[in-house]
Amino acid sequence: MAKHKIALIPGDGIGKEVLPEGVRVLEAAARRFNFQLEFTDFDWSCDRLLQTGKMMPDDGMEQLKAFESIFLGAVGWPGVPDHVSLWGLLIPIRRDFDEYVNLRPVRLFEGVPSPLANRKPGEIDFWVVRENTEGEYSQIGGRMFQGTDMEFAIQEAIFTRKGVDRVLKFAFEFASKTKKKHVTSATKSNGIIHTMPFWDERFAEMKKNYPDIKADQYHIDILTAHFVRNPDWFDVVVGSNLFGDILSDLGPALTGSIGVAPSGNINPERKFPSMFEPVHGSAPDIAGKWIANPIGQIWSGAMMVRHLGYPEAAEAIERAIAASLVEGGPRTRDLGGNGDTKTVGAAIAELV
Amino acid sequence: MAKHKIALIPGDGIGKEVLPEGVRVLEAAARRFNFQLEFTDFDWSCDRLLQTGKMMPDDGMEQLKAFESIFLGAVGWPGVPDHVSLWGLLIPIRRDFDEYVNLRPVRLFEGVPSPLANRKPGEIDFWVVRENTEGEYSQIGGRMFQGTDMEFAIQEAIFTRKGVDRVLKFAFEFASKTKKKHVTSATKSNGIIHTMPFWDERFAEMKKNYPDIKADQYHIDILTAHFVRNPDWFDVVVGSNLFGDILSDLGPALTGSIGVAPSGNINPERKFPSMFEPVHGSAPDIAGKWIANPIGQIWSGAMMVRHLGYPEAAEAIERAIAASLVEGGPRTRDLGGNGDTKTVGAAIAELV
Ligand SMILES: CC(C)[C@H](C(=O)O)[C@@H](O)C(=O)O
Ligand SMILES: CC(C)[C@H](C(=O)O)[C@@H](O)C(=O)O
Repeated sequence: MAKHKIALIPGDGIGKEVLPEGVRVLEAAARRFNFQLEFTDFDWSCDRLLQTGKMMPDDGMEQLKAFESIFLGAVGWPGVPDHVSLWGLLIPIRRDFDEYVNLRPVRLFEGVPSPLANRKPGEIDFWVVRENTEGEYSQIGGRMFQGTDMEFAIQEAIFTRKGVDRVLKFAFEFASKTKKKHVTSATKSNGIIHTMPFWDERFAEMKKNYPDIKADQYHIDILTAHFVRNPDWFDVVVGSNLFGDILSDLGPALTGSIGVAPSGNINPERKFPSMFEPVHGSAPDIAGKWIANPIGQIWSGAMMVRHLGYPEAAEAIERAIAASLVEGGPRTRDLGGNGDTKTVGAAIAELV
Repeated sequence: MAKHKIALIPGDGIGKEVLPEGVRVLEAAARRFNFQLEFTDFDWSCDRLLQTGKMMPDDGMEQLKAFESIFLGAVGWPGVPDHVSLWGLLIPIRRDFDEYVNLRPVRLFEGVPSPLANRKPGEIDFWVVRENTEGEYSQIGGRMFQGTDMEFAIQEAIFTRKGVDRVLKFAFEFASKTKKKHVTSATKSNGIIHTMPFWDERFAEMKKNYPDIKADQYHIDILTAHFVRNPDWFDVVVGSNLFGDILSDLGPALTGSIGVAPSGNINPERKFPSMFEPVHGSAPDIAGKWIANPIGQIWSGAMMVRHLGYPEAAEAIERAIAASLVEGGPRTRDLGGNGDTKTVGAAIAELV
């Protein structure tokens, strides 16, 4: 029986509450589909930062290399500036492990009301492919004349041909396996005149290799408008680090709950571990109450087992999530129920 | 009778169709409220670029200085890269005339269906204040190793204390005159670690001067989600050049038609002319058919006369727009009617 080593990083806030439910469902899936997951816990978090001065130990990245995948809850806590906690843990993992694809499904489930008028399941069903290692998120930049009237801050966005091409290629390859076979590129080449025209050029180049795939592009401003007005237009939407980030929160918002959205930070070459985590954050406002929706974490688990090579297990988890939503199973407050985190997790594990 | 000199720049595509309707309504308002507008036409456009090599003459900016305001249609045409047309006309006007505030109302009108479920007029009624001269839109940056595998592009985002403070100040001053007295800042200080934490610092500093105004902030990703889920939360939303751009397309999308959204590019000190233009672009797909919705242009005219000192005239135009939408007046195709551009313009002029 194949055995896979998984690093567990619950992180902060509700991350610590939803992660165990993700694990519970993964264990159910492993039993049913005959594989083994070996979990190792890491307490890397803002708590740890406050105690030791570091989000993770100095050899943290080295330790993680021993694992096939990382299953993460959420990172961030009030009192710790986000750019400290995130750049001390989440972002180095994404970046140093070359997890250059951040993949996020946007899907409207039966039983979850959409904030959009008259949208039915099946009409919102697409993927956001986000570049995850470069672009607008960079360490390059800084400030000058700090504390004076002349103060200014500079941020460099850096787009490499290698970085852009590989994520575009992933998007086209991914779309070659979908029903609609359609890639939409998020750009802003009318406003951001150095990097975005470059992105567009690479997109035009890449699409030549995929004559059977429909390819189009929109500026990010009007693209957010189309997400709201025409979510049925999309299949695979590819964007830079920042644009992908925005679209992969806006997308799930159209489907009723950020609490159910999952994500995979993927190193397609499998040279390094990939990381799976819910889209939601650590939610300090509801942390400690055990009312957080664990579905984002559980669905991330489905993405992880698909990555590990068990598509049937992934589908079983996704079907269990869908069934729990339709069949009047327990639901958490964000979806109008009053189930707690554990009851929902247990119900889904049972369905698997 | 006061006389105001206005430069007209129809620009490209439907800009040439909607601008005359804006003028027609402005003339009706001027007659009724006793002021005079003296219009001068400029053919600066992509057509002109193709003929002469320039979007505007070399002394274009100098010529415009003679005017109190600029009333613009839309800029951009297929075959001309956007970054060429826009950086040759629209952006220099915004920037060199220090029109550092881009102000855009987001309002759901009676009679215009929202793509959101169960949203009524009054529930979506807020303003986006966008920084309009610096930030993510900058000429600084470029490419290296062009045409090779090592190619990369760099874009610098530049935020100055002066630039950030003045737009934040405008937002707070503006909110001090609204009913809700609430400013929301768009940030991304967890991902964009040099400029956005700086923006947050300046926001924290500025809000100290306005103890009676409620101030909060969200990361741009979740903020777009809240626009969809909780548009009633907002009053004045302030963002950088890029974030404001995104939010001021997404906002109008929630209210049913980008075709009706107006904008003002404002130099609050009135040292230079301000410019008023619809949010929509030149729409090559429908240009020449005279079916474009002129309301965005007409409403921009209302913003312009308010800026010129005629609030009653502005309100009369806005009431006429609202009335034409409710009372079964003619409407263009985007709003489900089959009126043409001129019929709608004439109907609104009549109501004024
Ligand atoms: C045309 C483009 C440069 C422009 C912008 O991004 O500023 C447009 O989207 C707008 O919002 O006026
Ligand atoms: C926490 C933050 C840095 C992060 C991002 O912007 O990447 C988050 O919004 C996400 O999407 O995973």
